[in-house]
Amino acid sequence: MQKLILVKVGGKIVEEEASLNRLFADFSKINSLKLLVHGGGRMATEVAGQLGIESRMVEGRRITDAAMLKIVTMVYAGWINKTVVARLQALGIDAIGLTGADMNIVRSVKRPVEQMDYGFVGDVKEVRLDMLHMLLMQKIVPVVAPITHDMNGQLLNTNADTIASELAKALANRFDVTLIYCFEKDGVLRNQDDEESVIPLMDRTLFNTYKENGIIQGGMIPKLENAFKAVDAGVKEVIITKATSLGKNSGTRIS
Amino acid sequence: MQKLILVKVGGKIVEEEASLNRLFADFSKINSLKLLVHGGGRMATEVAGQLGIESRMVEGRRITDAAMLKIVTMVYAGWINKTVVARLQALGIDAIGLTGADMNIVRSVKRPVEQMDYGFVGDVKEVRLDMLHMLLMQKIVPVVAPITHDMNGQLLNTNADTIASELAKALANRFDVTLIYCFEKDGVLRNQDDEESVIPLMDRTLFNTYKENGIIQGGMIPKLENAFKAVDAGVKEVIITKATSLGKNSGTRIS
Repeated sequence: MQKLILVKVGGKIVEEEASLNRLFADFSKINSLKLLVHGGGRMATEVAGQLGIESRMVEGRRITDAAMLKIVTMVYAGWINKTVVARLQALGIDAIGLTGADMNIVRSVKRPVEQMDYGFVGDVKEVRLDMLHMLLMQKIVPVVAPITHDMNGQLLNTNADTIASELAKALANRFDVTLIYCFEKDGVLRNQDDEESVIPLMDRTLFNTYKENGIIQGGMIPKLENAFKAVDAGVKEVIITKATSLGKNSGTRIS
Repeated sequence: MQKLILVKVGGKIVEEEASLNRLFADFSKINSLKLLVHGGGRMATEVAGQLGIESRMVEGRRITDAAMLKIVTMVYAGWINKTVVARLQALGIDAIGLTGADMNIVRSVKRPVEQMDYGFVGDVKEVRLDMLHMLLMQKIVPVVAPITHDMNGQLLNTNADTIASELAKALANRFDVTLIYCFEKDGVLRNQDDEESVIPLMDRTLFNTYKENGIIQGGMIPKLENAFKAVDAGVKEVIITKATSLGKNSGTRIS
């Protein structure tokens, strides 16, 4: 099977000029088929603030009422997505910007209201592979914004990490997929205060041990659980690393 | 050659729920290959106002500084484009939202500063046909926002009427293209105060006469000149009509 690298970058990286340039340079050096998924939460919060709208987060997830949905769609699918596409095109990468609504590549359902009403937030239900496959076969590089739809005309704000892992799992049916989560640190750390303490390889046994010991906690737990699920579903390798280390043999590997 | 209908709708139509529903219903009934180009100026002005940024227009064109470029990209390529795509998907139309930057389908150059500095405004230079053709052959319906790029990483605000006519001209090399400009009136009127006075057929001789007589004036002159250029370049027919008359045998035909 053909190799495909799927890179997920957080908002901070695509919102700052220096890190963005570095990312683009590294990303353009990847020789295999590739796909980029981006966030943009910080800029959404900034634009919302300028419009006098308060951002409310619950466990790291944005409460998305109608006004906030408009803002995240404008920021993620509009400004960030098209800026990234134009910049990649300038580097000779034939990028296309997509949301889940475009060619229905990611369909989700509005999260049911239980203890918490997240508003127009989507849980991914289905990835449509045929059109993504067609684009990739034409050497097109999809750049995916974290907005999906429900096929009933409703746009939904959707977690970018989840979109990345769902796309990776679906694409694993046709490609040899490596999923790279870029974030602020060099990898999963044994000691949060020591950037040198990267755990190079992680398997489920080690994960369970570290979780019990409290070495791995907070937002890293769902991130790693997502990673294991992706590997179980056929993704060859998941790497958690710093954006500036893309392409280097560093970070934490989950396989 | 296969028939292709290219519909350009102004901002007002895609910004109002009632006219939008009507447009979608009519557009979904078009049986041939099709493509939609939309505007969104009114909403850009509204969002700019909410952000405390004044919209400056010169001869109907928006002066686009860096802050305004961000706003139009958010509004056109983000909110309006993805709302339209999600709504069309719900009607069973396999839509994809695109700007000129996506797969480099429309490359433009920043308008040179002469008497007037329009800022980040693009004049269309080239339409890339191969990728549009590929999408259309897969029964995908492109929905194009009036944002292009210069292949040097710069996004550019670009007139939607011009994008529509440039796409129509390029597509005329491979398809039997009808270009429909939807606007507020039933067609080109002989008398602005009489909606019944639609000129059903327009050729260049008639246009010159009406222009000399002052019957046709203002913004309709460049619109019609664009239409004649499209016909000269191989577009089979240009129709100027009301959005709610899409699919009916009405409006002004230029051929």
